[in-house]
Amino acid sequence: MLSLLRLRGGKLLSPRTIQALNTGFYSTEMSKRVAVVLAGCGVYDGSEIHEASAVLVHLSRGGASVNMFAPNIDQMHVINHLKGEPSQETRNVLVESARLARGNIQDLSTLSVKDHDAIIFPGGFGAAKNLCTWAVQGKDCSVNSEVQAVLQAFHTEGKPIGLCCISPVLAAKVFPGCEVTVGIEKGEKYPNTSDTAAAISQLGCTHVSKSVSESHVDEKNKLVTTCAFMCDAPLHEVFDGIGSMVKDVLKLA
Amino acid sequence: MLSLLRLRGGKLLSPRTIQALNTGFYSTEMSKRVAVVLAGCGVYDGSEIHEASAVLVHLSRGGASVNMFAPNIDQMHVINHLKGEPSQETRNVLVESARLARGNIQDLSTLSVKDHDAIIFPGGFGAAKNLCTWAVQGKDCSVNSEVQAVLQAFHTEGKPIGLCCISPVLAAKVFPGCEVTVGIEKGEKYPNTSDTAAAISQLGCTHVSKSVSESHVDEKNKLVTTCAFMCDAPLHEVFDGIGSMVKDVLKLA
Repeated sequence: MLSLLRLRGGKLLSPRTIQALNTGFYSTEMSKRVAVVLAGCGVYDGSEIHEASAVLVHLSRGGASVNMFAPNIDQMHVINHLKGEPSQETRNVLVESARLARGNIQDLSTLSVKDHDAIIFPGGFGAAKNLCTWAVQGKDCSVNSEVQAVLQAFHTEGKPIGLCCISPVLAAKVFPGCEVTVGIEKGEKYPNTSDTAAAISQLGCTHVSKSVSESHVDEKNKLVTTCAFMCDAPLHEVFDGIGSMVKDVLKLA
Repeated sequence: MLSLLRLRGGKLLSPRTIQALNTGFYSTEMSKRVAVVLAGCGVYDGSEIHEASAVLVHLSRGGASVNMFAPNIDQMHVINHLKGEPSQETRNVLVESARLARGNIQDLSTLSVKDHDAIIFPGGFGAAKNLCTWAVQGKDCSVNSEVQAVLQAFHTEGKPIGLCCISPVLAAKVFPGCEVTVGIEKGEKYPNTSDTAAAISQLGCTHVSKSVSESHVDEKNKLVTTCAFMCDAPLHEVFDGIGSMVKDVLKLA
């Protein structure tokens, strides 16, 4: 009984049936096909939930069809978000990302570039812990091989890549010489922007200061970035900035 | 090192420091004070993530100050959202809800009605599994005693209560005679609305058919409801319907 979830006329529907019902949620015909890459579910060890949700809301409003992906690997660690401390659990990035995707998610290893017009990476510590090791190694980090391959493939095809919060460091690491934003350098409400921007510069890239409500477009590399929760802003401003990023990605796609 | 999270000038910040930095995100002065009650993090065993995020975005845009709460109890079960099957883990509702709250959440037992002008319950199976037992017992469900006490206290004080998706059944169970919506009865895109509406009627309440973009206001009981993911709608329509609910709650507060 516990494996059954939703009441319908005295009968409970299985999760698989519900997932089938859900399949239409993020798809429309004749629309831009966008891949969204998740990194878990929760700001301190996975994708930042509100950033990921904002990306999906704006893609839905833009009429895009969305496929979600995540690497099938263990998280760097699991943070108890109540205590702000690591716990002794092990959780899988793909399985936890499925919470954000309502079950409709695939292994990143199966992502086909030809089936998509653009790709977007929400932020959160998961992007800096599970997609690369920036959280502990900064500019000397390594990038997950599947993430690196996917980034390079979209770039080679001239398909746009959207990134927010800390995720732009993935582009800075993989595309030397590119332009990204992670907020306003020396901005009062951007406590980590200056140091992250310095590391980005050390990688041979250009950091462009932009407010939380703006996105920056690197036309040459078709990269669209916005700082999201790198700014201590009210949630709706983060939401709107991500809207700007998604809009620019869809324009380039 | 793994307990440390964010890079700042070569130093990593602790989660507690980050939580302190985050405290301002959902608060502004001279605003409506709204309690949001979560039930975990993930549609099949907790709060529906996109509904909870939408509630917070709209409250932020409405200038409300938000405090988040969840019961400090074990989840009814843990669903592997990738496989759509129960897993053998145990997770705590308050700890998992903290993922949605970026750590800024309190035990529901500490919620003080006098410190708030309104309360909102996002949906998801967690509302029907962890806040009450509707998912397995329907109209014969029991309601968590803290949830019941909080609902009755806001109702007694004449303070508005917002609910979406399956959460309106909490009101139907606690306030016989009230009016709520869980979507459009016999609506093609509302697969579970008719049966849920029938159960609501059996509890002596009135179900009012409303589309995903609308909210229903029971003026007498100060209840505001919207169907959210009870409708197979694109995500931005769910987001907008929740916006309507939040707006009506703030109007009544």
